Amino acid sequence: MAKNKHPEETVNLILETATRLFMKKGYEHTSIQDIIDNLGGLSKGAIYHHFKSKEDILVAVTDRMTEESNKLLGTIRDRTDLNGKEKLRTIFRESLLRPVQDDIFTAAPNISDNPRLIFSTIRDTVDEVAPNYIVPIIEEGIRDGSIRTEYPAELAELIILIANAWLNPMMFDSTPEETYRKIMVFRQMMQGFGLDIVDDEIRDRMRDLAAIYQKNR
Amino acid sequence: MAKNKHPEETVNLILETATRLFMKKGYEHTSIQDIIDNLGGLSKGAIYHHFKSKEDILVAVTDRMTEESNKLLGTIRDRTDLNGKEKLRTIFRESLLRPVQDDIFTAAPNISDNPRLIFSTIRDTVDEVAPNYIVPIIEEGIRDGSIRTEYPAELAELIILIANAWLNPMMFDSTPEETYRKIMVFRQMMQGFGLDIVDDEIRDRMRDLAAIYQKNR
Repeated sequence: MAKNKHPEETVNLILETATRLFMKKGYEHTSIQDIIDNLGGLSKGAIYHHFKSKEDILVAVTDRMTEESNKLLGTIRDRTDLNGKEKLRTIFRESLLRPVQDDIFTAAPNISDNPRLIFSTIRDTVDEVAPNYIVPIIEEGIRDGSIRTEYPAELAELIILIANAWLNPMMFDSTPEETYRKIMVFRQMMQGFGLDIVDDEIRDRMRDLAAIYQKNR
Repeated sequence: MAKNKHPEETVNLILETATRLFMKKGYEHTSIQDIIDNLGGLSKGAIYHHFKSKEDILVAVTDRMTEESNKLLGTIRDRTDLNGKEKLRTIFRESLLRPVQDDIFTAAPNISDNPRLIFSTIRDTVDEVAPNYIVPIIEEGIRDGSIRTEYPAELAELIILIANAWLNPMMFDSTPEETYRKIMVFRQMMQGFGLDIVDDEIRDRMRDLAAIYQKNR
């Protein structure tokens, strides 16, 4: 086989194919061989040249989705037509309501028994999402009077950790009913901070995403 | 060497010696060789017969401490002189204020970069501590009118996860000042649930334990 002159294109092809298959069949039901069979003649060696395992492919696919999601968070953070509290509400709504979430929850692996993937989600939330997106919004909310706290960094970390980890059915393997009850507790918690931003639509959407996720276990 | 007829006693000796050394020098600064040197002639082979690594010893030491801690939680849960809310307050106070915590935070390893240990703490909290100790107390609080929630299982899980994981300086490698601010956010959150149970003494104790922990990094 001729040496591949375009490794980036190969990686893109592998990731796009893997994403499509994960979204169609679910991560657990997709094998490396399935991915190879759909690469249009690319060899097993070529895929293993770039990725050591299916989990490695998953990490790369997740990194890409995180990039997409961060773009959305950045856009909302930088809007000038909303106050801090409205930005927080918009982040929850737009993140959850976008249709690609159906595919993501279909594709999702069960990470509740995978320390490495749980760990990387928590790290990313604490080190990237909280300081870059949530803290600036809470600080804006303090300035415009829509959010009251003396501890923006810690409040941001707590809120986004709960949203990304505890409420995430992939991480705690929660049923739709458990997810519903968790988000009711989260709503009450947010109200305690004066943040009445979890509405019925968000609640029902979370429960439905948990159902999509559980259907594909 | 004669064959060991009392493997349990050997394990006890190893764990007691390791605990003492971890508490004196800190986990990171204690080597397997230090433990062997303090076992009174027990061979390297004997220790490796029972434990594959220093981390394995740590897990066994932690399991023992968890047993002790659960005994305390069970005693408070079963008291008949307190209502539900008072039991929750007592759990926080007695868990944190007992003097052995100084030793534990001295001995503690930095687990913020150890997915396996973080994972096992979270699992233990969700699968054991919440359902066996916190849920019954919250349900009692609902019955006696001292706690108001429709979701005892989920509220229990959230509270104890935050207390055992997010507020734990070992897990997030928090400074005393960060720990202080986190507990202030936690206090406000608990007040939002009508649970005014985090007092200044608990707050200052947490900060001091974080300082003990950080001094031994």
